[in-house]
Amino acid sequence: MSVDATWVAVVGPGTASGEQAAAAEAVGAGLARAGAVLVCGGRGGAMEAACRGAREAGGTTVGILPGLDRREANPYVDVAIPTGLGELRNGLVVRAADAVIAVAGEYGTLSEIGFALKTGTPVVGLGTWELARGGERDPGIVVAADPADAVDRALALARR
Amino acid sequence: MSVDATWVAVVGPGTASGEQAAAAEAVGAGLARAGAVLVCGGRGGAMEAACRGAREAGGTTVGILPGLDRREANPYVDVAIPTGLGELRNGLVVRAADAVIAVAGEYGTLSEIGFALKTGTPVVGLGTWELARGGERDPGIVVAADPADAVDRALALARR
Amino acid sequence: MSVDATWVAVVGPGTASGEQAAAAEAVGAGLARAGAVLVCGGRGGAMEAACRGAREAGGTTVGILPGLDRREANPYVDVAIPTGLGELRNGLVVRAADAVIAVAGEYGTLSEIGFALKTGTPVVGLGTWELARGGERDPGIVVAADPADAVDRALALARR
Amino acid sequence: MSVDATWVAVVGPGTASGEQAAAAEAVGAGLARAGAVLVCGGRGGAMEAACRGAREAGGTTVGILPGLDRREANPYVDVAIPTGLGELRNGLVVRAADAVIAVAGEYGTLSEIGFALKTGTPVVGLGTWELARGGERDPGIVVAADPADAVDRALALARR
Repeated sequence: MSVDATWVAVVGPGTASGEQAAAAEAVGAGLARAGAVLVCGGRGGAMEAACRGAREAGGTTVGILPGLDRREANPYVDVAIPTGLGELRNGLVVRAADAVIAVAGEYGTLSEIGFALKTGTPVVGLGTWELARGGERDPGIVVAADPADAVDRALALARR
Repeated sequence: MSVDATWVAVVGPGTASGEQAAAAEAVGAGLARAGAVLVCGGRGGAMEAACRGAREAGGTTVGILPGLDRREANPYVDVAIPTGLGELRNGLVVRAADAVIAVAGEYGTLSEIGFALKTGTPVVGLGTWELARGGERDPGIVVAADPADAVDRALALARR
Repeated sequence: MSVDATWVAVVGPGTASGEQAAAAEAVGAGLARAGAVLVCGGRGGAMEAACRGAREAGGTTVGILPGLDRREANPYVDVAIPTGLGELRNGLVVRAADAVIAVAGEYGTLSEIGFALKTGTPVVGLGTWELARGGERDPGIVVAADPADAVDRALALARR
Repeated sequence: MSVDATWVAVVGPGTASGEQAAAAEAVGAGLARAGAVLVCGGRGGAMEAACRGAREAGGTTVGILPGLDRREANPYVDVAIPTGLGELRNGLVVRAADAVIAVAGEYGTLSEIGFALKTGTPVVGLGTWELARGGERDPGIVVAADPADAVDRALALARR
């Protein structure tokens, strides 16, 4: 089943503002409606909002957890994988995905963006990090206008 | 959903004899009928047979893959997680499980048995490794009489 | 010996311009003169230049490699650890360090910066990524004026 | 320097009897005299005894640690790499080595033996696990007569 689906990682802060959570939830719902599997770090904030959106739209959600206890997953995770890898599990979230949508984001999100871009996984951003070097904006993150646009772009760019 | 279920890892050789495959398939079916999630390394042999048994009995199967391509999963894996960790992913298979059933087994299975016993995850064996030190049998692996017995024992011993 | 030393990770691009290599080499030399152990990803570019600088100043260099063959290390690595983790080894480079100096940098460097900032390891930057959110510069990376300043700041901030 | 050396992992229990510690120490000393780098899990028991033997014979010792603090290394480790991977670091100890010597051993040692044999790294045993399947002894572990013999065999079999 899920082997044939497109997998999209939703990465974002573990504590989210109302606006960030609403955006993540809309992204999750959009992915579910498109038949994509949502994979994330399995915890709270943007991850939980995205899972809730996906679940309510009938989608499948996978959480790759930093700790060793499956019960640390948010309640909208269908399949929770405890890893005991701490923040290193961020790399596994990215490796499990065909594309990444970054919603807002703290430093953990930055590590996921870097890892994805390094390994050739497309990254779509929604109110997330702005990257520059030598004063020049880096074009790696595809900037989306809104949640629906983020979903469309991620699915169009997904590596498969 | 799967967060509340018991997760049992089925570990065994990537190339299985007919008898080994039949045992693994019966184990997978038994786990599914008991409502457990089956997690494994996602490849062929005993892993594929166990997934087939679980799938045909209506269960959920998770494969944690050594490589980077979800499509290396056997066709009976519902949720395939590519890791790129090679054989190190064996440790993640064990960490994802509340108990382990070893069906037959080569050296990879041995590493999973050692990792599980080291970390306190119960191991039930079905025609698998026999461990001794100083000529004395080690009692770590609980020996099952047949697939149904292996399922019963694993569920009874599962850490939760 | 090295257990009591301060360890500083030098992260940067695997292919470096002459100016970037000169900066990395000066950073490596400065760390060695201060008695710090230099840890890096063990490959070419900024990593190799930093190791060369440290080695020529009598320091110790550790390379944590993405592949499985120790011989993929650059010739100035004293202790080469093959991991087979691919780019996930970036997280181990950071975990091995008390502070991080980022010299220039591509996306892999970005992942290391994010991972370090997420886990509370100080990051000093020399011509590296400029991070912002909502148009506002993020203060996580401590900007150094030159290689000597980068070394001084990293050693002053190192977690120990 | 160490890139050209043969690396041998010494694996064994974190708590060792006097006899086991003496064997591990002699193995460490023998490896150092032969110019090999000793890599281990960096903790106590057989690991500490092996490092002590190697250090006293002028060798180099590397410890790949389960936790995040370099200071959890035993005092005879020259180069300590904290990983935060818990028991998964056992796989990295094996990946860093050209051959493995198992001295006595608990379940963690068993996981390292399985991982090494699975990945084609020779394993020499000294009073360690005895492996069988279907009542038949498995020939994977090369049994050594004493510490000097273990060192000789490991160096002769080392993959390089």
